[in-house]
Amino acid sequence: MPDTTYDIPHTVLAVDIGGTRFRVALFDGEGRRLVVSEGDTSHSGGRKWMLERVRERARALLEQTGYRVGGCGISFGGPVDFQRQRVTSIHSPGWKNFSFAKWVGTNLNLPCLLDNDANAGALGEFRYGAGRGTESLVYVTLSTGVGAGLILNGKTHRGKDGLAGELGHIPISDSGITCSCGAAGCLESLCSGRAIAERAKALGWLPSHGSTYGHAMACPYSGEQSEGITAKEIMQAASEGDTTAARVVSEAARWLARGLLTVVRILNPDKIVLGGGLTLAGQVLLAPLQQCLAELASPTIGYSTAIVVAELGTYSSLYGAAALALDLMKLQPLTRLPRQ
Amino acid sequence: MPDTTYDIPHTVLAVDIGGTRFRVALFDGEGRRLVVSEGDTSHSGGRKWMLERVRERARALLEQTGYRVGGCGISFGGPVDFQRQRVTSIHSPGWKNFSFAKWVGTNLNLPCLLDNDANAGALGEFRYGAGRGTESLVYVTLSTGVGAGLILNGKTHRGKDGLAGELGHIPISDSGITCSCGAAGCLESLCSGRAIAERAKALGWLPSHGSTYGHAMACPYSGEQSEGITAKEIMQAASEGDTTAARVVSEAARWLARGLLTVVRILNPDKIVLGGGLTLAGQVLLAPLQQCLAELASPTIGYSTAIVVAELGTYSSLYGAAALALDLMKLQPLTRLPRQ
Repeated sequence: MPDTTYDIPHTVLAVDIGGTRFRVALFDGEGRRLVVSEGDTSHSGGRKWMLERVRERARALLEQTGYRVGGCGISFGGPVDFQRQRVTSIHSPGWKNFSFAKWVGTNLNLPCLLDNDANAGALGEFRYGAGRGTESLVYVTLSTGVGAGLILNGKTHRGKDGLAGELGHIPISDSGITCSCGAAGCLESLCSGRAIAERAKALGWLPSHGSTYGHAMACPYSGEQSEGITAKEIMQAASEGDTTAARVVSEAARWLARGLLTVVRILNPDKIVLGGGLTLAGQVLLAPLQQCLAELASPTIGYSTAIVVAELGTYSSLYGAAALALDLMKLQPLTRLPRQ
Repeated sequence: MPDTTYDIPHTVLAVDIGGTRFRVALFDGEGRRLVVSEGDTSHSGGRKWMLERVRERARALLEQTGYRVGGCGISFGGPVDFQRQRVTSIHSPGWKNFSFAKWVGTNLNLPCLLDNDANAGALGEFRYGAGRGTESLVYVTLSTGVGAGLILNGKTHRGKDGLAGELGHIPISDSGITCSCGAAGCLESLCSGRAIAERAKALGWLPSHGSTYGHAMACPYSGEQSEGITAKEIMQAASEGDTTAARVVSEAARWLARGLLTVVRILNPDKIVLGGGLTLAGQVLLAPLQQCLAELASPTIGYSTAIVVAELGTYSSLYGAAALALDLMKLQPLTRLPRQ
């Protein structure tokens, strides 16, 4: 059924609020990015600061384009109550129970659909990235923390409490390391950017010689630091032959391999798509990951689930936000968007 | 849409081939068991022996009933290629690549649908047991091995290679214990009936005083033995205060809790339904399981996934086989079952 039947406008607004970057963009009906406006997230600014930036940039885009924009999708880097369409974050001050979709209706005059960044990333890769043509995929985001979004039989699987995909908090180890969630032995406490930085620090690792990479706060995974040490620095050092750094990355890769094989065993999806800042490190992480996956393999139970890197890079969630908006418009073509 | 529109017969044949018992039964269109004929599985008899028993008992039921029987469902206790409708078992001699559904067509003149016992158990509990009214459930079968069947958004989720639900083979431990699958550290190698028996043996445990329970081969989880020790004996001893037996059960419960919490974190299903022979032990296993689940809980990430015991007991898979047959009849009411 062609969209034109209902005169659905072919342009949507997509908003991605991440821990280090935020983005406001326009996409066409086929999920092509027309224009993006982005900046660094200010943690001290809180909700008010963030919303002012979003409103400002969104209004500029809406005024500049000659297209009629029909809806908005938001990817939020924190817990979201999808049913109630509001942020449930207990970590970031000011965001708790905030009805973000309603705010978009009031401030930008657009119908809006909100989801968390892992689900949005999964949808983005499924619709426009590495997951095109699959029926099921698990998108795993590796950055400060570890999360996942699930697309099963073509649809986002959210679970009973909206807590499906909490891959970072599977109880995978007896290590006793306490996770940010308060439990012990979570996957996230062993292979996230934060975990990598803390492990290096525990081993007494320090960045050697004059660093060739910029200051941590400018990198896409700047949140992953422990008293000045960042996961990016450790990845870089590992790739340059630093044995301690290589050990830290190798240990993290082993835990990650166990986590991914767990997903394969339970869901056997068409694909697992790896996204998030840590994947930008490339082969220094991916090579030991593949090696560990091979070592953990069973000689009698195979699988053809492909484990690949996100095609949309750090934009998976933004594309997912666009897909949310386009899906919303298809759901309510006549009531909210009457024929002109 | 009422079934009567197509004059669909309201009775189906259900077959359950398990490692210790086999069952042939008639069910009505609402999934009520009309009659069941069952016996012990002979391992030495192989496929030929088994098929003769099924044909014999099925024909007797089909002759005895006054209802018209319209289809057949089979639950098979081993790997099944659902797409090709054949057994793929590499463990049991004679079953490899056997087209069981085709055999039913030839020998019993009924359209037939075949699935493995974990998927059938999940479908049985979903449709007629503890999962009624849910949208998603994970059925976990705890017997000689550990397996799972997934119902997501009302449908069986099989995965890319038909290997979804291989919960017994998630890499959960550094124990180094080699699993029956050949890999190390699988969940099954730590909390299956076989693992419980082997752990007790490793601790030098022997059944004390004159046993009050019958010979292992008559119990529903008789396969779970290690040189004469059975999981049933250990469960019984634990419930009678044997400290070594209690330790073995407690250790297994802890691993199982980790496996179930992993399922909760990844899928957050409406329910997890525990089936299989081990659950017949009741509170001696379930009490430490609940305690371990509470200990592993995160103070910040909750869940309302209910973890319950199968309502259909050891008949979950048989009911699932009936559901398979009824689903098949709805799929092909006019082509294969013409209006009379």
